[in-house]
Amino acid sequence: MNTPPFPPSSGPDRPRLPWDPPDHFEKRVPDGDNRERLVCARCEFIHYQNPKIVAGAVCTWGDRILLAKRAIEPRKGSWTLPAGYMELGETTEQAAEREAREEACASIEIERLLAMYSVARIGQVQIMYRARLLSADVAPGVESEEVALVEWADIPWEQLAFPTVVWALAHFHESRGKSDFPTYSNPTGDLARMWPPRKPAGV
Amino acid sequence: MNTPPFPPSSGPDRPRLPWDPPDHFEKRVPDGDNRERLVCARCEFIHYQNPKIVAGAVCTWGDRILLAKRAIEPRKGSWTLPAGYMELGETTEQAAEREAREEACASIEIERLLAMYSVARIGQVQIMYRARLLSADVAPGVESEEVALVEWADIPWEQLAFPTVVWALAHFHESRGKSDFPTYSNPTGDLARMWPPRKPAGV
Repeated sequence: MNTPPFPPSSGPDRPRLPWDPPDHFEKRVPDGDNRERLVCARCEFIHYQNPKIVAGAVCTWGDRILLAKRAIEPRKGSWTLPAGYMELGETTEQAAEREAREEACASIEIERLLAMYSVARIGQVQIMYRARLLSADVAPGVESEEVALVEWADIPWEQLAFPTVVWALAHFHESRGKSDFPTYSNPTGDLARMWPPRKPAGV
Repeated sequence: MNTPPFPPSSGPDRPRLPWDPPDHFEKRVPDGDNRERLVCARCEFIHYQNPKIVAGAVCTWGDRILLAKRAIEPRKGSWTLPAGYMELGETTEQAAEREAREEACASIEIERLLAMYSVARIGQVQIMYRARLLSADVAPGVESEEVALVEWADIPWEQLAFPTVVWALAHFHESRGKSDFPTYSNPTGDLARMWPPRKPAGV
């Protein structure tokens, strides 16, 4: 399930998602707990909801960066980095490798952790690696309309899918040429406000 | 819900946990998906299970490190770092701060990301920070029997609760005095095999 990093908007009008709980789940504080959870009124199943991990990578082939054009909503037709929900049984690195394979038919080698972003509003933690493509042989997977290896100067900033894609690219740019650097986290200042997406200052 | 980092063993004899799905949930590949999920046979609710995030911190007061003695299973009576499941609506940093408050009545200031470990076998990603205690005034929370500020030489290595606690302490030790360092990840070699827990070589 390679659901996208996050929808640019949410709220009461957002379409129903497959993991939305049914209406007969009710909010209640289970015994021994200290906060409200969704509990099935029919069978008492406690539906714990925790933040989800999105894993992905800035994948390079020489100076070029792998982008994929989204074939699915939200943000269909916009450009993104290969990334998606981590599955049970894999490591964060394996999840990023799988997403590159699924979304861009790409074989990659993880270099190092680039960034970790908390997107609390939508309950996500996004874990982004720096990775090398093992071959320039990339192609759209089922969730992509198109893939491209783009030069830095050709990044379609205003057609990027999500603010975190802008962040990851800006942080990647800043980390270029460095092999040891602290993991980037949620930016402050202008870079924090990248919706609508655009080219950040100084990159 | 401050469920512990992970049980040292799992398997068919493991006790039923609150988030275990009921028996009438069945495995099935939902439409549009590519892997088996648990689906409620009564209402078709799809119970997506994804890795959970555990956030915590190595919290220091001068040279001393905050440890908490677990008052709950698994590993009741063993020593751990304040850490627990991240909740919706918070950032990873806020989750680590909350866990320090809940488990050790501790106020902390996050310094930087220390380590990120994937524990694929039990579907966890553990995110550990380096943090400073804002006061030495610590006390057991409801999930702790005791808390202590221990010197490095006094760490009760063989009474530590989980391998990742050993890893985080060893990586913390290696990072001491450094302000810029890459985030540590799953160790290899001897440090990868810290069950039963013991003092790693070279720390």
